[in-house]
Amino acid sequence: MEKRKGDENKEKQVDESALIVNPGIEQPPSINEDAIKRFKAKKRKQLGVDDYFKGIREGNITILSQAITMVESSLPKHQEIAHRLIEKCLPFSGNSVRIGITGVPGVGKSTFIEAIGGYLTSKGHKLAVLAVDPSSEKTKGSILGDKTRMETLSSDPNAFIRPSPSAGSLGGVARKTRETVILCEAAGFDIIFIETVGVGQSEVAVHSMVDFFLLLMLAGAGDELQGIKRGIMEMADMIAITKADGHNVNKAKLAQAEYQNALHLFPPTESGWVPKVVTCSSVYKTGLPEIWDTIESYMNLTKENGYFNDRRSQQAKYWMYESINEELSKRFYNSASIKSVISSIEDEVVSNKTTSFAAAQKLLDIYFDRGNENSK
Amino acid sequence: MEKRKGDENKEKQVDESALIVNPGIEQPPSINEDAIKRFKAKKRKQLGVDDYFKGIREGNITILSQAITMVESSLPKHQEIAHRLIEKCLPFSGNSVRIGITGVPGVGKSTFIEAIGGYLTSKGHKLAVLAVDPSSEKTKGSILGDKTRMETLSSDPNAFIRPSPSAGSLGGVARKTRETVILCEAAGFDIIFIETVGVGQSEVAVHSMVDFFLLLMLAGAGDELQGIKRGIMEMADMIAITKADGHNVNKAKLAQAEYQNALHLFPPTESGWVPKVVTCSSVYKTGLPEIWDTIESYMNLTKENGYFNDRRSQQAKYWMYESINEELSKRFYNSASIKSVISSIEDEVVSNKTTSFAAAQKLLDIYFDRGNENSK
Repeated sequence: MEKRKGDENKEKQVDESALIVNPGIEQPPSINEDAIKRFKAKKRKQLGVDDYFKGIREGNITILSQAITMVESSLPKHQEIAHRLIEKCLPFSGNSVRIGITGVPGVGKSTFIEAIGGYLTSKGHKLAVLAVDPSSEKTKGSILGDKTRMETLSSDPNAFIRPSPSAGSLGGVARKTRETVILCEAAGFDIIFIETVGVGQSEVAVHSMVDFFLLLMLAGAGDELQGIKRGIMEMADMIAITKADGHNVNKAKLAQAEYQNALHLFPPTESGWVPKVVTCSSVYKTGLPEIWDTIESYMNLTKENGYFNDRRSQQAKYWMYESINEELSKRFYNSASIKSVISSIEDEVVSNKTTSFAAAQKLLDIYFDRGNENSK
Repeated sequence: MEKRKGDENKEKQVDESALIVNPGIEQPPSINEDAIKRFKAKKRKQLGVDDYFKGIREGNITILSQAITMVESSLPKHQEIAHRLIEKCLPFSGNSVRIGITGVPGVGKSTFIEAIGGYLTSKGHKLAVLAVDPSSEKTKGSILGDKTRMETLSSDPNAFIRPSPSAGSLGGVARKTRETVILCEAAGFDIIFIETVGVGQSEVAVHSMVDFFLLLMLAGAGDELQGIKRGIMEMADMIAITKADGHNVNKAKLAQAEYQNALHLFPPTESGWVPKVVTCSSVYKTGLPEIWDTIESYMNLTKENGYFNDRRSQQAKYWMYESINEELSKRFYNSASIKSVISSIEDEVVSNKTTSFAAAQKLLDIYFDRGNENSK
């Protein structure tokens, strides 16, 4: 319409001005009305729970990805879909080996996963690689965020790689990861890797959702320990000394012997399993079959002695109670009445003006005196 | 009065009956009226907060014991006294080394504490020995319950031994122990031992209230590890191999070397301290000065690098948050609406009929829908 007006003024311009503007060609509108109709039609056809379920059961990776996006979404509509989908997938889940993999940055987690992942898919396994890294939102250094580090594996039709959900608390990330595991298992993945960085609270979370916990370490004169949190070594079912190639082979073998001796001094595990120390090279692909054989021995042992199922039940209960406790705390610490006083009360505790317990009581009194308001 | 009546009837009996009852001697009343008056007077004079405070500051062990009984009591009247007393003692607390001591039954904790305790009091220290053992109520096997195991130390005027409070939850026991520490410090004790058995959750609690954590172990072929919980070794600032005497000396030296090597492989501690392994004999009193010297080096290091104060502040905050979280959980799990459904919902989770998170949500909805009732 505007263009038409311009066109009508054209003759006038010629008369009234020395500046001659050539008429030119009419530009097409910048918005394609047809495309909008097509997109809207497509959007209206958003997948329902049954579509997701069917796609997942057929092993359709695209639909699996979309379903995981629903799990990770904070929109109530998406959460509703995710909730129903997960309940539907639950009877088809559980038939995998869930393996936690940790190690500090620089230990070679990505290349290790790429190498052993290729070995496993070549043996006919279907492998899903997930990650738990609640820090990724802040640091933007999300593990697995850079898929190019696993170039071969990410184009392997029998492998599925999904970066850490970046939203919110450790509890939130843990929930999303556990639910993603259910979807992956229902989609036929029989090995699930859950990767984490060995520096924070997230290993405890990952340890509480896997069957087997693998710690990757570098051989060296002690420097390799920098950054690993104390307590993680005792959680490991296996330690793999990475980069055992070239000049490093002897150093790696020595480290293997040392760690094996050290682990012997540890108290026995609940599972009856004696943690193993192995060496491997992701570049030369050595040690990888041994690692997988060891995991299989562990699975045989724990399935036979009942620990495997016990542990999965314990983990299911653990996450139920953990979720409840997290929500109770969240409501408490996010309530306006607590927020307004907690830092000054914490200061009193730290400066020894009151005891931890008197301060806790004071806060609890403040919270529960408000009654209704805070309980909602 | 009754007796007098009997006496008057005496003549009559002689006349009216063939049965002759000899008059006998009047019995004194079974209740001593004077004593009642004395007891009542004493009870009315129950100590007030100021009396306790004065006694504690004078180092009066009897009054200290009575004050701890107030701390351990669940009567609101006693708790009120304890609360005010602790706040009063707080500015005089903190000037001690708090040492956690753990090890499985049989490792010789009591004889070790008796031996090193005697060494420390002979050097002019004042030592309080407390214990954390929440299981003691159930098992009746309270540690330190049997003071005869520390015969010499319990009659030492510079030592004060107090068994574990036996009431209730770990959180409750922890609170009472931390408050007892404050009283003991205000009473002039400059070394506090907190003993625990290395088999449960209580080590984590003790570790969170001490400056230094000592793990006692036996030399042997691995059997000594039975019963120690995984994760405890990595909490230790020092491992002492006990019973390093007679035939055992070589075995103990070997174990020492092995553990020292193992600890070198552990990640560094936050404090910058490298955990030490020593041997000792409680019978021959060998190794005890070295243990104390090591603890003093630790204190010097951590006071210099600031870790000592940081850690105490962290601990104070930890117990504030821990107490709040415990109370929030207690109200939730003890509420009638949750109690009536939780086990059936837990069963659904374990049998994979629902996810941990959906179950948690269901329980939270039940709890918070009741609103007012549950928040009180």
